[in-house]
Amino acid sequence: MSTHITVKEYRRRLKAAAREAKDAGVGALLVTPGADLQYLCGYDAVALERLTCLVITPDGPTRIVVPELEVLAAQASPIADLDVEIVSWTETEDPHRAVAKLCAKATRVWVNPQMWASHVFAFQNQFRLARLGPDQIVATLRLRKSKVEVAALAEAGAAIDRVHAKVPGMLRPGRTEREVGAQIAEEILAQGHATVDFVIVASGPNGASPHHEVSDRVIEVGDPIVVDIGGTMPSGYCSDCTRTYAIGQPPDDYLAAYQVLRQAQRAAVEHVRPGVTCASVDAAARDVLADAGLGEAFVHRTGHGIGMSTHEDPYIVAGNDTPVEAGFAFSVEPGFYLPGRYGARIEDIVVATEDGVLRCNNETHDLVIVDD
Amino acid sequence: MSTHITVKEYRRRLKAAAREAKDAGVGALLVTPGADLQYLCGYDAVALERLTCLVITPDGPTRIVVPELEVLAAQASPIADLDVEIVSWTETEDPHRAVAKLCAKATRVWVNPQMWASHVFAFQNQFRLARLGPDQIVATLRLRKSKVEVAALAEAGAAIDRVHAKVPGMLRPGRTEREVGAQIAEEILAQGHATVDFVIVASGPNGASPHHEVSDRVIEVGDPIVVDIGGTMPSGYCSDCTRTYAIGQPPDDYLAAYQVLRQAQRAAVEHVRPGVTCASVDAAARDVLADAGLGEAFVHRTGHGIGMSTHEDPYIVAGNDTPVEAGFAFSVEPGFYLPGRYGARIEDIVVATEDGVLRCNNETHDLVIVDD
Repeated sequence: MSTHITVKEYRRRLKAAAREAKDAGVGALLVTPGADLQYLCGYDAVALERLTCLVITPDGPTRIVVPELEVLAAQASPIADLDVEIVSWTETEDPHRAVAKLCAKATRVWVNPQMWASHVFAFQNQFRLARLGPDQIVATLRLRKSKVEVAALAEAGAAIDRVHAKVPGMLRPGRTEREVGAQIAEEILAQGHATVDFVIVASGPNGASPHHEVSDRVIEVGDPIVVDIGGTMPSGYCSDCTRTYAIGQPPDDYLAAYQVLRQAQRAAVEHVRPGVTCASVDAAARDVLADAGLGEAFVHRTGHGIGMSTHEDPYIVAGNDTPVEAGFAFSVEPGFYLPGRYGARIEDIVVATEDGVLRCNNETHDLVIVDD
Repeated sequence: MSTHITVKEYRRRLKAAAREAKDAGVGALLVTPGADLQYLCGYDAVALERLTCLVITPDGPTRIVVPELEVLAAQASPIADLDVEIVSWTETEDPHRAVAKLCAKATRVWVNPQMWASHVFAFQNQFRLARLGPDQIVATLRLRKSKVEVAALAEAGAAIDRVHAKVPGMLRPGRTEREVGAQIAEEILAQGHATVDFVIVASGPNGASPHHEVSDRVIEVGDPIVVDIGGTMPSGYCSDCTRTYAIGQPPDDYLAAYQVLRQAQRAAVEHVRPGVTCASVDAAARDVLADAGLGEAFVHRTGHGIGMSTHEDPYIVAGNDTPVEAGFAFSVEPGFYLPGRYGARIEDIVVATEDGVLRCNNETHDLVIVDD
C-alpha cells in the first residue's frame, strides 16, 4: 500500500484542526516547524531562529508566515496545493508581530508543544490580551492513525527488522560499541530510512543504562548487548525496535530473568485492544516482572506513541487512563536493569486494530546468542 | 591543538553563568538539553518529553534534574566530575514541580531559548509568583570563543573544505540533486564529522531558493549549482560552508554577477575586526551588491554566529549594532537569487581576532566550472 499522503488528506487534517479549535474556543492555533507542522501540511521546514509559523483560525483563512528567503522552499512543499496563504517577512521585520496581526482578536492562543521558548515569549509579548497555552488538538488528531499511516509504520517496522536481522553478524568480541553502532547506522540508511534517529549499543554493564548510546567499551565474551535503534523513513514515519543479544552464554540468572521479560512483553502486547486503558497495558507487563521480583529493576514506563515523531501520545504509563482506540500506535518495551551488572529490553511497535493488535516488528523475541 | 574541553573549563563556564545570573537578579537559570546544556557541562542529552533540566542558582548548589532511567547516562558525561548534584525523578512524579522546589524563592527565572513550549508552560504553572523569560546569559558566554573553541571551529572548517574539494568530481549532468546530496552526506562523515546537519544542492533555478535542500531535479549542462553543507564534529562544534559550481559555461550575465558577489564577500570579510558593528559587516557586503544593481536579489542577512549550534549569536544583519569582539565567530555569506533563473552564494566561517580575522574555510572563492 502507498505511504504517500494525498492533498485531500492534508486538507482534511487542516479542516479538522480548525474545527477542533472552534470547539475549544481557541482563536488561533500557531504551529512552528516540527512533526505537527509536517503532519498538518507536509512542510518539513527546519526549526530555526527565523520564525516559520502556520496560523490556523477557526473561521478565517489558514496562513503560514515564512522568512522571505524560504518562500520558494514553502512553495515547493505540499502547501502549494492547499488553501494556505503564504505571508513572507524580511530580515528586518518583526515576524511575531506579523503573526499577531493575522489573529488580533484571539483571546485564547494555543501553540505547538515543541515551539521554542524564544518564540513563546515573543508571542506572549505580542498577544498581551490573550492567554497562551500548549496545543493538544494536533496531538489528538495524530493519535489515531489512518490506514496510510499504519502502512507507513508497518513499512518502517519491516525496514528496522531487516537491520536487526544483520546485527548478529556485526557483533564480535573485540569490537567497540561505537564501531558496531557506526555499522548499524549505515545499515539503517541502506534498508531504506531517510535518517538515523538513534543507535543504542549497550554491552555488559552499559545495558543497565536504558538511554546509553554507544561508547568505546570493547565487547567481551559473555556480554549481553541491548540494541535499540530507529530512523525516519522517506514517508516521514519512524521506526523504533529493541532486541537483546549475547556473545556466548550469559549467566543462568540472566537467562532466567530474560524469560520473565519475554513473558512480560508478550503479556502486554496480547493485552492491547480497543477499550483497555494505556495504564493497563503498562500494568500487564509490570505485573509479570514484579511477580518474579524484577519490579524494581524495570525503571521506566512500558511505552510511548510513535508516528511522525519517535515519542508522541499515547504514553503507556501508570496513571494514563486514556482508553486505547483502533489506530493508536505505540511501543511495548519492558526491560530490566541491574546497575553494575547488565540489562535487557524487548521492544515492538504495535497498532491497535478493531479486533486486536497489529505487530510492526517481527524478528524473534528470543535472546539471540552469537557464537563467541 | 586539542579540541577537548577540560573539566576546568566547564567549571569556569558554570561559575560564570551563576555570577551573571546574580548580577541580573535572576534567581534560577533553567537549561534543558541542547547546545546551551552541552556548552555548560558537556552533557549532550537528547531533548525529549521527559524533563532533563540543569538548575543554576546564584548562591546555592548547581543541580540537574534527570529522569531516573537517564541517571547512568548523566553520570557517564562530564557532569560526574563537576560540582553538579544529580536529582532523579520517576515516571509517575512531576519533574517540573521537582525543579520549582529546588529554587522556590526565585522571583525571576530565565530558561534556555530553545526550551520546548510544553516545559515553559509547565514551569509557568509551577512558578506562580515568578516571572519567566528567555535567558541571554549563556548565549552571551557562547559569543566569545576561547582558544580551544576557535581551534575546534578551524578543525571543522578544514573538514568541510575537504568535502568541497571533492564536490567537482560528484557533479555530472544526468545525476539528480538527491544523488549528489547523498554522496556529499557520506563524505561529510568520511571527513570526520560526527553528524550531517544539512546538505543543499540547488541546481539551475533551484539556486534561487536559499534554503532549498535537494530534489529529484536532474542536473543539466549550463547549470550553476549552489552547494551549502555542514555537520557537527566529535568536538561538538559545527561546520558550514557554501561554494557555487557550474557544469560547463554559464551565461555571461551570471558570470558578471558572480564577480560582484565575490567582491562583496571579500569586502565583508576584510571589514571584520574588533570594534566594527555586526550591521556594518552586513552593509559591507550589501553595498557592493547594491551598487551593481543586485541589492534586491540579496534577500537575506549576511551571516549568523556559529559554534556548538550552526546558527547562534551574533547575527550579521542590519540593525544589530553589537560591536564585534575578538573571539566572535560567524558566517559571511552574501548571495544573489533570481527566481525562475538561478542563484549563487559564497560562505566562509570567520573568527574575529585581536588584530583582524581568521578564515576557517580556504577553498577557492572562484566559480568552479566542471567540464560538461
